[in-house]
Amino acid sequence: MKFYEDISLNERFVTPGRTITEADVVLFAGLTGDYNSIHTDEVYSKKSSIYGRRVVHGLFTFSIAEGLFQRLGWFEGVPAVSIGYEDVRFIKPVFIGDTIYFIGEVVDKRISTKKETWGIVRIRMEGKKADDESTVISFIHAYLVPLKNGKVSTNEKA
Amino acid sequence: MKFYEDISLNERFVTPGRTITEADVVLFAGLTGDYNSIHTDEVYSKKSSIYGRRVVHGLFTFSIAEGLFQRLGWFEGVPAVSIGYEDVRFIKPVFIGDTIYFIGEVVDKRISTKKETWGIVRIRMEGKKADDESTVISFIHAYLVPLKNGKVSTNEKA
Amino acid sequence: MKFYEDISLNERFVTPGRTITEADVVLFAGLTGDYNSIHTDEVYSKKSSIYGRRVVHGLFTFSIAEGLFQRLGWFEGVPAVSIGYEDVRFIKPVFIGDTIYFIGEVVDKRISTKKETWGIVRIRMEGKKADDESTVISFIHAYLVPLKNGKVSTNEKA
Amino acid sequence: MKFYEDISLNERFVTPGRTITEADVVLFAGLTGDYNSIHTDEVYSKKSSIYGRRVVHGLFTFSIAEGLFQRLGWFEGVPAVSIGYEDVRFIKPVFIGDTIYFIGEVVDKRISTKKETWGIVRIRMEGKKADDESTVISFIHAYLVPLKNGKVSTNEKA
Amino acid sequence: MKFYEDISLNERFVTPGRTITEADVVLFAGLTGDYNSIHTDEVYSKKSSIYGRRVVHGLFTFSIAEGLFQRLGWFEGVPAVSIGYEDVRFIKPVFIGDTIYFIGEVVDKRISTKKETWGIVRIRMEGKKADDESTVISFIHAYLVPLKNGKVSTNEKA
Amino acid sequence: MKFYEDISLNERFVTPGRTITEADVVLFAGLTGDYNSIHTDEVYSKKSSIYGRRVVHGLFTFSIAEGLFQRLGWFEGVPAVSIGYEDVRFIKPVFIGDTIYFIGEVVDKRISTKKETWGIVRIRMEGKKADDESTVISFIHAYLVPLKNGKVSTNEKA
Repeated sequence: MKFYEDISLNERFVTPGRTITEADVVLFAGLTGDYNSIHTDEVYSKKSSIYGRRVVHGLFTFSIAEGLFQRLGWFEGVPAVSIGYEDVRFIKPVFIGDTIYFIGEVVDKRISTKKETWGIVRIRMEGKKADDESTVISFIHAYLVPLKNGKVSTNEKA
Repeated sequence: MKFYEDISLNERFVTPGRTITEADVVLFAGLTGDYNSIHTDEVYSKKSSIYGRRVVHGLFTFSIAEGLFQRLGWFEGVPAVSIGYEDVRFIKPVFIGDTIYFIGEVVDKRISTKKETWGIVRIRMEGKKADDESTVISFIHAYLVPLKNGKVSTNEKA
Repeated sequence: MKFYEDISLNERFVTPGRTITEADVVLFAGLTGDYNSIHTDEVYSKKSSIYGRRVVHGLFTFSIAEGLFQRLGWFEGVPAVSIGYEDVRFIKPVFIGDTIYFIGEVVDKRISTKKETWGIVRIRMEGKKADDESTVISFIHAYLVPLKNGKVSTNEKA
Repeated sequence: MKFYEDISLNERFVTPGRTITEADVVLFAGLTGDYNSIHTDEVYSKKSSIYGRRVVHGLFTFSIAEGLFQRLGWFEGVPAVSIGYEDVRFIKPVFIGDTIYFIGEVVDKRISTKKETWGIVRIRMEGKKADDESTVISFIHAYLVPLKNGKVSTNEKA
Repeated sequence: MKFYEDISLNERFVTPGRTITEADVVLFAGLTGDYNSIHTDEVYSKKSSIYGRRVVHGLFTFSIAEGLFQRLGWFEGVPAVSIGYEDVRFIKPVFIGDTIYFIGEVVDKRISTKKETWGIVRIRMEGKKADDESTVISFIHAYLVPLKNGKVSTNEKA
Repeated sequence: MKFYEDISLNERFVTPGRTITEADVVLFAGLTGDYNSIHTDEVYSKKSSIYGRRVVHGLFTFSIAEGLFQRLGWFEGVPAVSIGYEDVRFIKPVFIGDTIYFIGEVVDKRISTKKETWGIVRIRMEGKKADDESTVISFIHAYLVPLKNGKVSTNEKA
């Protein structure tokens, strides 16, 4: 549970990993409606894709970054707000069976000029394949994080 | 089905809409593992969130943009590749029951300097609430799109 | 557990019912990829559909017939094979919140001319709304059902 | 986007394909409640089924036809209504890992005698395995499709 | 369909089996939020778990016991109530691909001292792997079951 | 991240909460195959159930306890093993829309007599409704937890 003051510039962390399964690709295609053949048709992908097989949706790899980060508990019970992303780059394709984890680093923190009981924190995330440590995705995630002594209420139970 | 040459600079389009349901939020929390209370605990959200209720994951609103765009059929059978996003901004929260659609505009197109049978296309997307036309999210999506007469094979069946 | 001989011509049955939820519609759209706005966009449906709201996919109502029928246990442990449907008619639209059950009647049974250890059984099914008993769908389902004393092995455990 | 007038008798089309996964079978069993051992128990299926392994639900193969057809965009923004199916035949079993696509042909079109701003269109669909082009399912799907100049409103946005 | 009187002490039964898939593990992690690396990260599990690979959530194996038991139809249309479990023991790990079925035995039945139109029935369940018949889980499940001639209404349709 | 030595007898904790949705009930019925009408048929439940409406599967409420507990991070990267449950009691029915959280207490800890690099920890859990703090479920969960200085390897990355 981290408030703005608990987060240090240049602080680094590593998330747990997650093996991406065929079921994940099926579920993500279904949930988003992105059924492009490159994700859902093995015969087409073998023949026409530059990868020779189905690839995982880039947005799925991107989306699980947040789920894996949440498991570190920073914002469990802290009402931080995601305000945006910068420079989202898909560097290498991810395939079914790859295990992905993220390395994060706090690259910027400053008090919000609009609401002084909140700070803005920028975290650079790099998604890596657990087998060869190659980077598959990188981006910067900007959060609005409440100050500890601000007027923002928190979930006292959690 | 659009190859690089079929896409015009400043071309605009509107995607179909989609009503975001409680089931979508449950499924997205489950699939990504992002169970933050702001998305999954109504009692907490009423008490502690600045919105007074559960909000839809920003990444879910972001992720369905691609699914809605695919329904226009541009890249059905064209092996375009998503290479990244710029300036993803969550402008207004989205709540369960909101209907969201996207307005797109081709803001840049150029031949890739690395592979001359491909072009880079940048599309600016704005997600809007169907009831009041307010903007909830905006971003630029960069794709690598094959040229029609390049050596890139396509799915002749589809 | 019913083999061919255990099924009588004109035998009738009633399946349990099931309340169709918004989650079912979301999941069926996702699983089949049929995201037509009439099922997924409440604003569009209000304005443009003849029903004034989202309708449940006809194929979903059709698909659950089999699941509800299975709960009667006829073919639990009997390797019956579905060979086809005739006259599938969508009679009334089904909406989120409707509870549907099916009335079945065995309308035909005969020994297969191709494989004499199997019989063909035709069951007429009518899907009904539990609140007003109106019929929403009707069809005939043809099964190939093993004879009790044929050579077809069965799951002795179950 | 096709209205009644945009559809020609004997017009033919090919849908994209889709690889059917174990996850699809698990999800379809769950969503419909059809947990028959022939779909969900590999040990039973090896021993007792005539196929020697789990088979995909016939209704799932049937259901994805509509999803694959929707990707062609005919009825995106056109409030066509499915009115029924004729002669649904399961010709060959489908197994986990098969890639299926559909060939369609408009076999009948006529103005509705009941509502003259609508036409009835019958499409014959054949589901094929992408590896050997064998036919696994065939059926005729009847739609009610609005005329372009009828009074039926359409989604002007999409 | 069994009321209290239809159930005999020491009565035994065998449920159908079910092959546990990777999709089941993905879905159960998602639905419960239990994303522990031992269930979702193959690389971690290979290195750090005593099993050398991902294991199925014990609670998933436990949860499907009820689904498999329901397929026997005892409480279809009988409003029995689950009141608790005793001595739930995870005896052997279950892995993706295992087929599990349950052997049940009625180990206790008595009229409820609190509500005399209901009886308490205790069923001992043992989950077994279909390949080697080894036991993976055992527990006792206590139900409150209505008497046939009590005042408890039943679903007359089903 | 807690090893055996980091856990104190009588230590208490509170998990985050979770609002149980209709989608959760649909998904749990589907995933486990427990489609009993008391969970899936609103018309039947209104008429025949003692609760007058659908109830949440007891096993679902039970299952999410583990997911909510994991969010506290005790066993993130610690290969603890669930060995069983005692005295699982369903005290009050849970309905769609209820928000549930758990209060835990370590009620027993001792070195395993079989493997001395592991300890057994028993945690008593009580599930509570967030609106009125009434208890809906209680049970004792027994874990095998590695000692910090034992030979058990841990996920050094996480």
